[in-house]
Amino acid sequence: MTDLMRAAVLYAAGDVRVQDYPEPALTPGMVLVRVQRAGMCGSDLHYFHDGCCGAFVPTRPFVLGHELSGVVAAVAADVDGLAVGTRVAVNPARACDRCAYCRAGRRNLCRRTVMLGSASTRPPTDGGFAHLVAVRADQCHRLGDLDHAVGAMIEPLAVALHAVRRAGMPVAARVLITGGGPIGLLIAMTARALGAVQVVVSDPSPGRRETALARGVDDVDDPSDPNLPDLGGELPDGGFDVAFEASGAPAALRQLFDLVRPGGTIVQVGTLSTGDVLLPASQVMAREITLLGSFRYGDVFDDAIALVRSGRVDVASLVSRVFPLEDAAQALAAAADPGTAIKVQLQIASDPDA
Amino acid sequence: MTDLMRAAVLYAAGDVRVQDYPEPALTPGMVLVRVQRAGMCGSDLHYFHDGCCGAFVPTRPFVLGHELSGVVAAVAADVDGLAVGTRVAVNPARACDRCAYCRAGRRNLCRRTVMLGSASTRPPTDGGFAHLVAVRADQCHRLGDLDHAVGAMIEPLAVALHAVRRAGMPVAARVLITGGGPIGLLIAMTARALGAVQVVVSDPSPGRRETALARGVDDVDDPSDPNLPDLGGELPDGGFDVAFEASGAPAALRQLFDLVRPGGTIVQVGTLSTGDVLLPASQVMAREITLLGSFRYGDVFDDAIALVRSGRVDVASLVSRVFPLEDAAQALAAAADPGTAIKVQLQIASDPDA
Amino acid sequence: MTDLMRAAVLYAAGDVRVQDYPEPALTPGMVLVRVQRAGMCGSDLHYFHDGCCGAFVPTRPFVLGHELSGVVAAVAADVDGLAVGTRVAVNPARACDRCAYCRAGRRNLCRRTVMLGSASTRPPTDGGFAHLVAVRADQCHRLGDLDHAVGAMIEPLAVALHAVRRAGMPVAARVLITGGGPIGLLIAMTARALGAVQVVVSDPSPGRRETALARGVDDVDDPSDPNLPDLGGELPDGGFDVAFEASGAPAALRQLFDLVRPGGTIVQVGTLSTGDVLLPASQVMAREITLLGSFRYGDVFDDAIALVRSGRVDVASLVSRVFPLEDAAQALAAAADPGTAIKVQLQIASDPDA
Amino acid sequence: MTDLMRAAVLYAAGDVRVQDYPEPALTPGMVLVRVQRAGMCGSDLHYFHDGCCGAFVPTRPFVLGHELSGVVAAVAADVDGLAVGTRVAVNPARACDRCAYCRAGRRNLCRRTVMLGSASTRPPTDGGFAHLVAVRADQCHRLGDLDHAVGAMIEPLAVALHAVRRAGMPVAARVLITGGGPIGLLIAMTARALGAVQVVVSDPSPGRRETALARGVDDVDDPSDPNLPDLGGELPDGGFDVAFEASGAPAALRQLFDLVRPGGTIVQVGTLSTGDVLLPASQVMAREITLLGSFRYGDVFDDAIALVRSGRVDVASLVSRVFPLEDAAQALAAAADPGTAIKVQLQIASDPDA
Repeated sequence: MTDLMRAAVLYAAGDVRVQDYPEPALTPGMVLVRVQRAGMCGSDLHYFHDGCCGAFVPTRPFVLGHELSGVVAAVAADVDGLAVGTRVAVNPARACDRCAYCRAGRRNLCRRTVMLGSASTRPPTDGGFAHLVAVRADQCHRLGDLDHAVGAMIEPLAVALHAVRRAGMPVAARVLITGGGPIGLLIAMTARALGAVQVVVSDPSPGRRETALARGVDDVDDPSDPNLPDLGGELPDGGFDVAFEASGAPAALRQLFDLVRPGGTIVQVGTLSTGDVLLPASQVMAREITLLGSFRYGDVFDDAIALVRSGRVDVASLVSRVFPLEDAAQALAAAADPGTAIKVQLQIASDPDA
Repeated sequence: MTDLMRAAVLYAAGDVRVQDYPEPALTPGMVLVRVQRAGMCGSDLHYFHDGCCGAFVPTRPFVLGHELSGVVAAVAADVDGLAVGTRVAVNPARACDRCAYCRAGRRNLCRRTVMLGSASTRPPTDGGFAHLVAVRADQCHRLGDLDHAVGAMIEPLAVALHAVRRAGMPVAARVLITGGGPIGLLIAMTARALGAVQVVVSDPSPGRRETALARGVDDVDDPSDPNLPDLGGELPDGGFDVAFEASGAPAALRQLFDLVRPGGTIVQVGTLSTGDVLLPASQVMAREITLLGSFRYGDVFDDAIALVRSGRVDVASLVSRVFPLEDAAQALAAAADPGTAIKVQLQIASDPDA
Repeated sequence: MTDLMRAAVLYAAGDVRVQDYPEPALTPGMVLVRVQRAGMCGSDLHYFHDGCCGAFVPTRPFVLGHELSGVVAAVAADVDGLAVGTRVAVNPARACDRCAYCRAGRRNLCRRTVMLGSASTRPPTDGGFAHLVAVRADQCHRLGDLDHAVGAMIEPLAVALHAVRRAGMPVAARVLITGGGPIGLLIAMTARALGAVQVVVSDPSPGRRETALARGVDDVDDPSDPNLPDLGGELPDGGFDVAFEASGAPAALRQLFDLVRPGGTIVQVGTLSTGDVLLPASQVMAREITLLGSFRYGDVFDDAIALVRSGRVDVASLVSRVFPLEDAAQALAAAADPGTAIKVQLQIASDPDA
Repeated sequence: MTDLMRAAVLYAAGDVRVQDYPEPALTPGMVLVRVQRAGMCGSDLHYFHDGCCGAFVPTRPFVLGHELSGVVAAVAADVDGLAVGTRVAVNPARACDRCAYCRAGRRNLCRRTVMLGSASTRPPTDGGFAHLVAVRADQCHRLGDLDHAVGAMIEPLAVALHAVRRAGMPVAARVLITGGGPIGLLIAMTARALGAVQVVVSDPSPGRRETALARGVDDVDDPSDPNLPDLGGELPDGGFDVAFEASGAPAALRQLFDLVRPGGTIVQVGTLSTGDVLLPASQVMAREITLLGSFRYGDVFDDAIALVRSGRVDVASLVSRVFPLEDAAQALAAAADPGTAIKVQLQIASDPDA
């Protein structure tokens, strides 16, 4: 008979229930992780508010959560080199390892990826707003002495790090980020840690602009400021070297084409809420602009941990509120409030290192 | 008193006159080239039909022409290493050499570029539909034993070569080109010479599709074929590795987002006739597509000549009609006919190697 | 009771016996391939002549052979998408899929690789000079309509393709290859197919130089020619853009530093027979030369097959002699003769598509 | 009649005289810079101690010095956009702008470069241990509000920045630098500013190791420590990602091949005092190591200034001693003492912003 654990289960839009739920089974190649901290991401909010996340519609109730830090609790017999008790951040994406994309080192493009806490598979895959989660051994990345609040920030930092790496950011770059949410701020911090000499965040919310300044960005902008288009022209080469669109707003993406320099790069990281967007393709040609996308992350979890451990990036300062698992519904509501929240987390285990 | 030469001068839309015109002066750092062959490009046609080329409106009559091959006829006293009598292809773009773009090896982005046969400067800069043209010594690229018909194809080949180089084309790439005009065909030939294993040209004109097949592309497509979107899905990784948009049609650019594979690259080479274009930016993110522009050419003229001399690319087969300079207006009319013309050239000197 | 098959088994230096041998077992994730053709590589010759291959000393008799083409004969129950009867080239290297190198797309650097026909593991891993070989499903690459003589050339072509890809070969490159054996010739062919405008092979053997010319290289050189150092100076930028060392001779590697241009690249592909080599490190700095190594191959088998199928590379012309499996010892002797042999293969199955 | 200024002139080994010297002439395209601070580099020491710098033997007495900061004092009539009074760091290398290397953005490989304070030209080119120096306008890089002590550090920082850029340093890199002199320390600082997560300096001098620790490197090593080869093996991927050889010692370069990981990169920055060096070329192949050189700098002066102005790199802390111009000989002697000196500078103008 299966043991039961507590878990936050999505039943429908607005209906998340913290309840008893079957513990996951331990199958070959896998480990069980006892979750300590779990962060809330935009896709968790989409599932909570809309009952789905874009095209991903769940076919049965499932456990949310994919920003996870915890302790290895059980290890399948065929797993080497990962001991019970190891403190780990979890990569929630399990790629197939065998397709052309996996073989070429672009695992985030693998079409057979199984993602924790997501309805991208049928049936949906249970996530980690729960006491235990089952993952393949190589999804576990050693935290060393980092605490679990930081450990649960490694997944969003991996999103930021992948985006910055995709950008092929030049040395001494001038960087603009549209969107001052957690991903935008993490991109700003990462860009600075990787040598950007000017990092500017643009966001319509005064509160988010204040937060960005307090977290060390060089300057902030209001995208509705009519003088904004002049900004690029004042830079040494006529605009920003690299811009990251992390807001999901089509108007933000459109605006970036006027703000990057000739030969500059725009990286789309945010999930756009609409379909096609009007973009100045003639500028793409005449100014040799590059627009490229960044989706999740490749194999950057160990790098993200190393950046934090070496003190190059301070992610702890972005954790703004923590709720117990039993209050998951309140936590989801709080996470949706852009005014007060940066990153909301659930504290799941009662004993912080159990 | 200035000597006179014959030249094809644009006065207004539809009004090109072959007339006596002052020979260019020889100033420090410069050489005079006696033009032998000159090709007709889309921008020449824009000037001829519209009296302007997009935002470039001439402030006085000027000589058209920038696809030039000829013989060095005079050399300023301070020029070393380029002798009278040298047979050369001409790079019509003279960058400033000193700005950040020039110093970084991206001279095509130099904002102080002076372009032959163009109203991008004020006053416009005379081009090479004339017996003599003045260029800086480093704009001359030795042809060796190539003939001038081929020499006048080096400039459009440079456009194609720059685009293929910008694409960062992977080994054994599958490549789609929209637009079967001279630039599209040159990109197809160049991509094949650089190791593409499948090269497909898409063009609505049956005549152009036939021409493409006759010039060695692997396959052709009609963009209005409703089955076209299935094409990408049949390829090994779910689409083309690289696509080049060389038609200038917004619908062609839009279509390419459905035809490239995840992680694929789209290169905008054609001049788009309209402003903003509706593009699927959410695909850019979720499928990590790269859209980038290619503008003119960097320092690729010697490479283009080497590709032709080594037999890797056969550009001579694209020269479809030749007119004498005195018939420049008829030549411009013929060049505008997509049914019959690939590349139309003017034969300018009476003695082929004078 | 295990079924028996015929196989060429290495017992000691000079002692290869074609004998009955246990058929390999079919375990989860694996397939059995009925080998049709198998090529002989330098490492097979090392095992045959020396009883070992450098540091790889076999701990028991084992089956040689890793350049393999065949037909899928059996498929484990958990394998999808690969049917019995599929004609395939075999990638003899099975990486772990999980280490940092595998995850980053550099599987050839995986330290847990299991290599067919090699004593790099303990005990050694049986290879494919036999009627059947067991491989993981993703080691099989579909040949389409290519014949098996070509199929058994895909592995050495993958070595060449990986080397050319590692080189980051510029467009319109001038390329020098030292060593006119099979790998050197395959690099020459591949470099040409990828847009090199001048491909030169240097080899002390007049026979190999003749072979190279007959296979389409642009020029050949004798490395002992005292005028050779002048060669680079005659090239446009003062030397070759890229040089590949495919002979394993330390003197050849040393010579290349004088023959590449400033900023040029040298790729070490050949296995050097000795330890440290005297190299001009001060030139590395003052002329910004890059020396890099190329080891086996990453995920390039499908690309290699595509290059052959599209006609860009003709590998069939390099197969110079074919022996039946029963004459494996004579075949190994013949393969060691540089004067007459390019690539020697074994025909293993009696029915060419059984 | 030419005006005279004070300058430190090299006559022979050990013979530097501070004397009256003709002021440089102002020719077209050029400016005169009133030098404020000038740093002493290894090549100045070579000229001072040996009378030459490797193969560069002066044909007449000349002014040393090429690490220069100053104020624009005069501007030729044809120079735009650079006003008298502008505070600038000087790029001492003037490339030809026209050769293939200049056009491709690799100006440091231009063979017609004119270098201040160097006998690489015949006659030698006067440098900046003097009140005035003549340079082309584009050799001047605006300092903004940085002081001249920092301004004279921009040239060595450019050496470091170019080396780090050549390395193509991966994100979150682990970096080893051999040689704790000014260039080694600047590389360490720059690597850290560009996102390296572990920066280790190896130097046999205990004083230099202390200095490195005080300047913020993560760890130091003694290259003669017999346990050093174990160091790489303890790192996550089996060694350092990138190593910079900045000592000029052949043994240091040799050692790095055992300390970088498979697929790692070694950058030779230091000037090697001897000819050929024994290097493990077989490791280059089997472990896919890249060895590449870094020579001077490309167009990185503005980037270097931006890194300093943004606070990412603190170069002021490396200036250890300052002498007046009249004491240039003592300053050269002090600069040669590795125990006490990091960077020795000359204060040239009496008024710090004249």
